[in-house]
Amino acid sequence: MEEENCVFCKIVKGEVPAYKVYEDEFVLAFLDINPINDGHTLVIPKKHHEDFLHLDEKEIAELMHAVQKVAKAVKKATNADGINIGMNIGKAAGQIIFHAHVHVIPRFENDGYKHWERKHKDKPDFEEIAKRIKENFK
Amino acid sequence: MEEENCVFCKIVKGEVPAYKVYEDEFVLAFLDINPINDGHTLVIPKKHHEDFLHLDEKEIAELMHAVQKVAKAVKKATNADGINIGMNIGKAAGQIIFHAHVHVIPRFENDGYKHWERKHKDKPDFEEIAKRIKENFK
Repeated sequence: MEEENCVFCKIVKGEVPAYKVYEDEFVLAFLDINPINDGHTLVIPKKHHEDFLHLDEKEIAELMHAVQKVAKAVKKATNADGINIGMNIGKAAGQIIFHAHVHVIPRFENDGYKHWERKHKDKPDFEEIAKRIKENFK
Repeated sequence: MEEENCVFCKIVKGEVPAYKVYEDEFVLAFLDINPINDGHTLVIPKKHHEDFLHLDEKEIAELMHAVQKVAKAVKKATNADGINIGMNIGKAAGQIIFHAHVHVIPRFENDGYKHWERKHKDKPDFEEIAKRIKENFK
């Protein structure tokens, strides 16, 4: 399945060029053209889904197994000290291309990137939050 | 398998308290006690592994299927506009607890968190980088 005007679907079909690093029946991986660090790679399911929440169980397994393979290869190839793996689901979370994809980002000591610090300093009501989340499993 | 002095193994064993939100045979999920936003949840394999790169294929599938379930529940429970899913592998990538875990972070329009902007402005040699990564798949 493909979606018209989806740039990642076009990469899968070969209509848009990309620096591919891995491919199997279900998954494709290629370099992010605006990398956080050199070697920053995107791993996508070939089938179009808006985001990770829309994949079925088998698709999750295929995608994430490929993500691990890609992460190991990126780490070796770039001699990275660490790896960040990330998914941004929804515009508010930073998603720009609405075809599910996983970022694999090589990290280096003192590369200048810092994780978010908590902005909301009030102690949350953990008890109440945990209860609400538990109620929302189907 | 468990590891002495691993706080997440202690949570699995019930020796350290946690606000649990999901549990099955292989996976446990509980609130991050230093949340980026309220509802920030960690999903871990019960079996001790240093990080995601050490999981086998079956463990990846179990973990990431649970991550999807947790992400959906967190999104509903918190009325989030988006979700970030992340793994920090290695100290240089921000890993603090060396027991594999996945962050599930609810995001809201204008919650004040911003993604990293590329710090290294030179155009990388994509061709060469892709070649190096491809050579590092086993």
